[in-house]
Amino acid sequence: MKKKIPLSHRTAGIQYAIRDVVVPAQKLEQQGHKILNLNIGDPLSHKGFSTPLHMIEAYKKALQSQINGYSPSYGISELREAIAYDEKGKKNGGWNCSANDVYVTTGVTEALQIIFSTFLEPGDEVLIPGPYYPPYIAYPPIFDGIVKEYRLNSTDGWRIDLNDLKTKLNNKVKLLILVNPNNPTGGIVNKEELESILKMVNTYPNCSIISDEIYDLYNFENNHISTASISSETPVITLNGVSKGYYAPGWRVGYMAIHDPENRLIEIRKGVEQLLRSRLCAPTPAQYGYLAGLTQDKGWMEEYLLKLLKHRDYAVNEINKIPGLQTEKPKGSFYMFPKILDDKYSNHDKKFVLDLLKKEHVLLVHGSGFSKNFGTGHFRIVFIPEINTLKEAFKRINRFIN
Amino acid sequence: MKKKIPLSHRTAGIQYAIRDVVVPAQKLEQQGHKILNLNIGDPLSHKGFSTPLHMIEAYKKALQSQINGYSPSYGISELREAIAYDEKGKKNGGWNCSANDVYVTTGVTEALQIIFSTFLEPGDEVLIPGPYYPPYIAYPPIFDGIVKEYRLNSTDGWRIDLNDLKTKLNNKVKLLILVNPNNPTGGIVNKEELESILKMVNTYPNCSIISDEIYDLYNFENNHISTASISSETPVITLNGVSKGYYAPGWRVGYMAIHDPENRLIEIRKGVEQLLRSRLCAPTPAQYGYLAGLTQDKGWMEEYLLKLLKHRDYAVNEINKIPGLQTEKPKGSFYMFPKILDDKYSNHDKKFVLDLLKKEHVLLVHGSGFSKNFGTGHFRIVFIPEINTLKEAFKRINRFIN
Repeated sequence: MKKKIPLSHRTAGIQYAIRDVVVPAQKLEQQGHKILNLNIGDPLSHKGFSTPLHMIEAYKKALQSQINGYSPSYGISELREAIAYDEKGKKNGGWNCSANDVYVTTGVTEALQIIFSTFLEPGDEVLIPGPYYPPYIAYPPIFDGIVKEYRLNSTDGWRIDLNDLKTKLNNKVKLLILVNPNNPTGGIVNKEELESILKMVNTYPNCSIISDEIYDLYNFENNHISTASISSETPVITLNGVSKGYYAPGWRVGYMAIHDPENRLIEIRKGVEQLLRSRLCAPTPAQYGYLAGLTQDKGWMEEYLLKLLKHRDYAVNEINKIPGLQTEKPKGSFYMFPKILDDKYSNHDKKFVLDLLKKEHVLLVHGSGFSKNFGTGHFRIVFIPEINTLKEAFKRINRFIN
Repeated sequence: MKKKIPLSHRTAGIQYAIRDVVVPAQKLEQQGHKILNLNIGDPLSHKGFSTPLHMIEAYKKALQSQINGYSPSYGISELREAIAYDEKGKKNGGWNCSANDVYVTTGVTEALQIIFSTFLEPGDEVLIPGPYYPPYIAYPPIFDGIVKEYRLNSTDGWRIDLNDLKTKLNNKVKLLILVNPNNPTGGIVNKEELESILKMVNTYPNCSIISDEIYDLYNFENNHISTASISSETPVITLNGVSKGYYAPGWRVGYMAIHDPENRLIEIRKGVEQLLRSRLCAPTPAQYGYLAGLTQDKGWMEEYLLKLLKHRDYAVNEINKIPGLQTEKPKGSFYMFPKILDDKYSNHDKKFVLDLLKKEHVLLVHGSGFSKNFGTGHFRIVFIPEINTLKEAFKRINRFIN
């Protein structure tokens, strides 16, 4: 018998908690049980939200017109222009983005892989918020980078602990990741905080900021501000796409937009462009669907957001009524990250999630999957489902705990 | 002035010759010149070939039905089953592929990145055919792998030089890449050659084969055989997708299918699955378009292939008539890789391509972009364009050389 071929050290540690809990849920479904899924951040996975029809029509038209070949590697020019125009026009903080600064990618995850592979040398540090979205801890080590978490404050609306961030900045930090609004906590970063962060980072000339703003259109305070709009020194790469704000995650179209006021990323951009060429292009006809979303009427957005706000308020209220649970009010995204006060589970959040799934058929994601340091004793819940579904889920969670 | 941030060593050497020559061509176009593009391997970039309508209809239906959310990370189950059924049923060498062996990816390039990152430890060797498709030389070094070329024989239909391959196999070789039919040469690997290769590789228990069969439906000898179908020991990962054979490269749906008769890839598969989960999914509605291609009538394929065969024969004949050029007859794919006999250019193929572009507005790709060792003194030409376009291109090439 020949030996097994080992998995490379660089990918051996990868976990993706969000989908890892899906396996036991699928087993229950195969046994005929109906599961209340509050685990996946897909705005289309529940009744009440759908991809706007004018976007679908534009996408279909591209297909029908045989625009099915490769697109330019950086994206179709109309889309790059529309994204630049959109970034520039953002209400509370547009930045002077040109079409040439925009690179269309296959979702934000592809942009992340390209960024980490072009920036990181062995030993370079990447600072990420804790709790984190799992790819942020998984991808840097693939390129020999070292990930360190800075603390989001669980008792202060999950705001960034600026003192903690300060102690973790040093000359080895190549990238600082901001996720605003945040997944999994729902926290946002306001203008004053961004200014403080930029002031700190400006003193480290090796450090660039990756600003993941994929949830920017889910800001319930209506005060989202692009990091790039207020950075006059530090390079900022903004990440966004069609997935969340435009309700089409399966289309796989995202972008990275480079704001580089001191022209320090010239070499990096060359590498980014070569990598983009080597993988040909993002999905072509889908780019026309996104283009329609960006350039046509956006009136539908307000209605969607108001509906989601109702869900948010209902969910916060109901969770906080359940003895043994406590949550901060998320100011953005469509996640909450409640704390488990119950003694039995407060340090065993994965057991909590799996036991709840088994007994009550409600699927959440365990907080430790988003950070051993800052997520243990919590769980992530998606508040997109209809109020009736949320109501039933909370009833079952209450029954399970109490 | 702060220092530029350097590009990582692992991505600094990446070149993608095929798109690199596009930049000067675009400049000419901006000046109002019309370019004859014989450079890009996109079957839809020329009149006469289009994505089959029943595939477009199925894709549109998925969009219209709001199947716009994330798909399962390994692909929708119907597509994985259809791919497995298709692999099993392949005329000259189907293999016993099950739906669980199939992982749907965003084109073959994503599969390559996942494979190299899960297999390679620093110093591991990857053997690739020379001339090569550029991502094969670009991606392994990103994961600290070392690429070595084995020789394709330029005077023997670009068949694999088995003796050369034999001398390059050793215990450090983790992956052997086969590209069958081959890009850029049009060569194919027949059953006897595959058997010889497997016999050699079977003595190296650390080595797996990546069999890139994206051009399998462009085999003019009608004798394509899947490597996996005849491997009883060595693991084989087959790569394929919707791009070429189903005329929809912009949809970005490919797959990797794992044939592992001795169960040696258990750990690798776990890593592959974690990486696939972390990047969420391949484009969702496009998967339904590919599904229709695989499961509905394939009668259209013969007509397309016969047409392309006419182009092939015409192009081979005409190229060989031009004094100063000589080509092998490609048995597969839609590329030829002629040799430049002309003294002035025989060692300066990039200059040949750029001078030709400037003077005659015909765009080819220089052979050295596909291998300094085995491609210099050649160029790649795509024979998809209509006969009239090819005719005009050959006239101009002839005028340029003579």
